[in-house]
Amino acid sequence: MSSTSIEMTSLSGAWAPVARRPLEADQARAFAPMFKALGDPVRLRLLSMIASAGGGEVCVCDLTGSFKLTGPTISHHLKVLREAGLVDSDRRGTWVYYRMVPAALALLAGLLDVTAVATPV
Amino acid sequence: MSSTSIEMTSLSGAWAPVARRPLEADQARAFAPMFKALGDPVRLRLLSMIASAGGGEVCVCDLTGSFKLTGPTISHHLKVLREAGLVDSDRRGTWVYYRMVPAALALLAGLLDVTAVATPV
Repeated sequence: MSSTSIEMTSLSGAWAPVARRPLEADQARAFAPMFKALGDPVRLRLLSMIASAGGGEVCVCDLTGSFKLTGPTISHHLKVLREAGLVDSDRRGTWVYYRMVPAALALLAGLLDVTAVATPV
Repeated sequence: MSSTSIEMTSLSGAWAPVARRPLEADQARAFAPMFKALGDPVRLRLLSMIASAGGGEVCVCDLTGSFKLTGPTISHHLKVLREAGLVDSDRRGTWVYYRMVPAALALLAGLLDVTAVATPV
């Protein structure tokens, strides 16, 4: 488990959507690397390819063909997503297989949930 | 209206949550700067302070006191949030007032919505 995943777990229940309550400094420090990992077009596309994969996981061998990038560059982007706790991976034989971490995406979506605001009277 | 806001508007209806369908390259290029803007602890805290403000907006004069940062540094971070289309601002007299752009936050939350996946049979 990466340190980011640990921080994420420790945040469970402690945070509220940004539209409801300001984040504490330590909460912001835990969430920021996850958003930063999404702040790149290649990583966003990779995440969407992994998250929408029919079988729940994708072989790295099926990801590289969609980009005009070298294998090591794709691997670097996948490592950033993994270290941010957004995807997980398993090596089986020659290939590495990636799957999304739904709890991490749900956490970020919940943080940005503007419908969670109490309607002002 | 910033170019990012224009791109965001042009995306309406064209994208699906990452858990449902891979993003196109141009969609990823439009979304990435918004996530990148959130990928900093100070900007995340600023956004949460603006988004949760009782009156719907916050004077920049009420934001700076919460950080051990200079005014120009805070202003730089606010500019990044504004250029990403996440907050909007008005200058009234001496001060600039910031408010969140709910549609932008909802767009990002929708993109990360893992509950939007069709349940596999």
